[in-house]
Amino acid sequence: MPSETSPLLPTSNAQPVRPRTRIFTRKNVFILALAITATLLFFLPHSKSQNPTPAPDTKPRNVIMMVSDGMGPASLALVRGLQKYRTHDESLTLNLDKHLLGSSRTRSSSSLITDSAAGATAFSCATKSYNGAIAVTDDHNACGTVLEAAKDAGYMTGIVVTSRLTDATPASFSAHASHRSMQDLIAEYQVGMGPLGRSVDLFFGGGLCSFLPNTSLSSCRSDDKDLIDYAANEQNFTVLLDRSSFDEVSTNQLPILGIFSDYHLNFNVDRDNTQQPALSEMVAKALDILTEATKDSEKGFFLLVEGSRIDMAAHNNDPVGHVYDVIEYDRTFGDIVDYAKSHQTVVVSTSDHETGGLTVGRQLTDDYPVYRWFPEYLAEGTHSVEYLARALYATELSNDRLPKYVRETILPGLGVVSPNEEEVLSVMEAGKDLNKLILALSNVISRRAEIGWSTHGHTAVDVNIYGYGPHVKRLRGNHENTEVGALLQAALGVSLDAVTARLSNATVVGNQLLLSEDLRAFEETDSYLGCHQDL
Amino acid sequence: MPSETSPLLPTSNAQPVRPRTRIFTRKNVFILALAITATLLFFLPHSKSQNPTPAPDTKPRNVIMMVSDGMGPASLALVRGLQKYRTHDESLTLNLDKHLLGSSRTRSSSSLITDSAAGATAFSCATKSYNGAIAVTDDHNACGTVLEAAKDAGYMTGIVVTSRLTDATPASFSAHASHRSMQDLIAEYQVGMGPLGRSVDLFFGGGLCSFLPNTSLSSCRSDDKDLIDYAANEQNFTVLLDRSSFDEVSTNQLPILGIFSDYHLNFNVDRDNTQQPALSEMVAKALDILTEATKDSEKGFFLLVEGSRIDMAAHNNDPVGHVYDVIEYDRTFGDIVDYAKSHQTVVVSTSDHETGGLTVGRQLTDDYPVYRWFPEYLAEGTHSVEYLARALYATELSNDRLPKYVRETILPGLGVVSPNEEEVLSVMEAGKDLNKLILALSNVISRRAEIGWSTHGHTAVDVNIYGYGPHVKRLRGNHENTEVGALLQAALGVSLDAVTARLSNATVVGNQLLLSEDLRAFEETDSYLGCHQDL
Repeated sequence: MPSETSPLLPTSNAQPVRPRTRIFTRKNVFILALAITATLLFFLPHSKSQNPTPAPDTKPRNVIMMVSDGMGPASLALVRGLQKYRTHDESLTLNLDKHLLGSSRTRSSSSLITDSAAGATAFSCATKSYNGAIAVTDDHNACGTVLEAAKDAGYMTGIVVTSRLTDATPASFSAHASHRSMQDLIAEYQVGMGPLGRSVDLFFGGGLCSFLPNTSLSSCRSDDKDLIDYAANEQNFTVLLDRSSFDEVSTNQLPILGIFSDYHLNFNVDRDNTQQPALSEMVAKALDILTEATKDSEKGFFLLVEGSRIDMAAHNNDPVGHVYDVIEYDRTFGDIVDYAKSHQTVVVSTSDHETGGLTVGRQLTDDYPVYRWFPEYLAEGTHSVEYLARALYATELSNDRLPKYVRETILPGLGVVSPNEEEVLSVMEAGKDLNKLILALSNVISRRAEIGWSTHGHTAVDVNIYGYGPHVKRLRGNHENTEVGALLQAALGVSLDAVTARLSNATVVGNQLLLSEDLRAFEETDSYLGCHQDL
Repeated sequence: MPSETSPLLPTSNAQPVRPRTRIFTRKNVFILALAITATLLFFLPHSKSQNPTPAPDTKPRNVIMMVSDGMGPASLALVRGLQKYRTHDESLTLNLDKHLLGSSRTRSSSSLITDSAAGATAFSCATKSYNGAIAVTDDHNACGTVLEAAKDAGYMTGIVVTSRLTDATPASFSAHASHRSMQDLIAEYQVGMGPLGRSVDLFFGGGLCSFLPNTSLSSCRSDDKDLIDYAANEQNFTVLLDRSSFDEVSTNQLPILGIFSDYHLNFNVDRDNTQQPALSEMVAKALDILTEATKDSEKGFFLLVEGSRIDMAAHNNDPVGHVYDVIEYDRTFGDIVDYAKSHQTVVVSTSDHETGGLTVGRQLTDDYPVYRWFPEYLAEGTHSVEYLARALYATELSNDRLPKYVRETILPGLGVVSPNEEEVLSVMEAGKDLNKLILALSNVISRRAEIGWSTHGHTAVDVNIYGYGPHVKRLRGNHENTEVGALLQAALGVSLDAVTARLSNATVVGNQLLLSEDLRAFEETDSYLGCHQDL
């Protein structure tokens, strides 16, 4: 008997239509959802525990950029060797050693060897520019910096350095100038006279001379603008000009402008702790203040920290000044990583370039050298080359009493406790020439320690990158220095475009600084030939 | 009307007992299991795709250890700058740059500055020892090496270097000697005369003189042992002594002893390709042979590769010899990483130490230096300093024709196409003293390129670690050089203890080399003062 079939169904080779099992009842969908949720709940914490580091896109509260100005790879072996000698701990490593990520290629757009301005602009604007450029591009247009963008985005901002505040690195985050030598203009930006107004909430460093009118004896300005007065009265800065006011300052006094020296702060080995705070002290204070000030805010802070004078000691070819500033920087890095561990903070530390062509091993004669160097001399040093050279330069001792002074005071201060006659003579021969005295003294201590230098300028060697916290994995390996700037933007979650546009518009609408003209004023004279400000 | 209540239930504030929904029916348990499985299936491949690198404990088939002898961090900036100049590609990076992991602390147990022997022993035995030590510990006892342990574990083994095979680095993997100068003994170990018999399946390198009896003119042995004869007839080595036999050798001829020079192979810039294979060619051949020979084996191979003469050029303070050997090393590293990508292979590349105190930046006068250096001179160089110094040393030209030869042949060969009279004179003044000629020539080219050197010996700066493949993540960051040795063991899955014990027993049962006595024969004279063999 033929079965009845629907005319709409094929009659041959047809797959039998299976009755639909009713799995997707309302009740079962509920169970399925429950099961998936349960499974998810089971897996999520599990995978989390396998990967305790935050996911790459975790948003940190704070970002701290540290710059060890002029510290190349040789400085690490130098300081580690010294610290091993001082502590008798052969297994000692530095705080930095525990957080090495990779290295940075430092060339600028104008040379295989960068200066500090182009180096810092690579960090602040994430762009290569020419030697001397302070947060301006190759065509001398201002580029927005990560600090300015962070301020715009609601972060608080701080700068803590041991140089003048107007020096190349801090300037490249907080000002725009065609050339690093335009320190009058840089200081004006820093107190908030620029088209963006005030971008920095906290400054600790040196360089008061650029903030004082040229009617003041301590001024190094070419005009009579009183930026301290402007900062205090127009921008409401709490101005701190000595150690005791630094010690007493508290959170509710922001914004703060702390300047503890007319020029750079002293090398750490020379520093009088009753007069100037150490880098680590300034950073501890800044962290306290900025943490407290942002505790109720969604955003935390961006802080720039620079061990500025590491570089300047290397410019002097002074191993004593150099190592003790690196040691203070390493201590500060350790403190900052400790802070970061409990404060959702990204820390990046790198150098803008190497200074001095430092090497840890030096051949003294034509004979093939023994494989060794002598940290013990650096361990004995109590003052920088520059400090001792100035002391010798300033002394009023008569010529017949000078050799005894060099032998018993100057050279022992440098770590050469028992100088030989040849060493004393080499210093005497420098006469009353400060540069020659610096040269002679650095030569005596560097030869004793068997440490080499190839220049008073910079070199092209890659510098190390260190870091801690979310995002910093991106800096593992070897990177262009501009990638450090890109990492800062990513960690802060900011773009520089809006700030760059505002700076660009300022040149059109005009402002009190006549930005565009000022920026281009130095264009004719710009050159990286001998443009250093450090030595 | 009062409701009926059970005496077992609280009568006040009681939550109503809900009837239990029958979720765990057989059918629903099935659905739950299905849901969990589906969820698992959804999540597992997802998490896998997020982490394409092999798990840390993945067992590789092959392990390749590369040593860039004497290459410090400055060499990378030097070579990168040169290659950018040669290719006009500003974004160029080296193969090594793409695989930077971290850096290595290089000190030995006897000095803050290591020699190559202690440096290589840190890699081969994973232990710190004194300068001069060839796979022996501080107390002069032999320590088993990763190469010997790999051979024991069933891997095939190879050594490819550009120095003498008996030089410190290859020796420290394949021999045991109280001092690196015991090259007679080292060669005996290498051909299989030691207590372990033959450990190495393939050798490519230089140094034939240590394998020939002192009855041969080319010998540098102190005895009449013919190690080539022993290798060929007692150990069944296929012995290759020229380029053509190298070109023709094939897999089924293992073990292979290929020695292409009496002493070191030539610097790459001087190398005659019809006479000596390049490092990259030797490595390509070694990879072909070892891959084919192990294709049916559970275990692959351990291969040591050294760019040995990078170091020796730096000992001469010769930037031309140095950069072209680094370039060849970088090419070889790139080839090896390419191989590793499809062959389950771990690659580690590092240096034992820095040589020369090289810096990329040099001040030539008392004036503050411009920030620059000049790769163009290195780009023009066609011969090493040593090659040209030997040519000048050997010339029979009369004194009046010498200046023209120096001006038109010698200095242009070094890259100084138009030397000035002062430069020609500085070379003339070296006279017929080979060392002084090397000094004078390296000084001319280094000053032209504005490159600095601080010693003809070694320095203490940390050296870079590069790598590819499973396990190498362990070398991210800053490490003691012995941790490289530990990584090699982990990657190979071997322990050195059994080999060390066999070597130790050999001193008790005695053997043809009288191991213990031989090892201690040099104890009295051991010192790292001037013990270098490189210059």
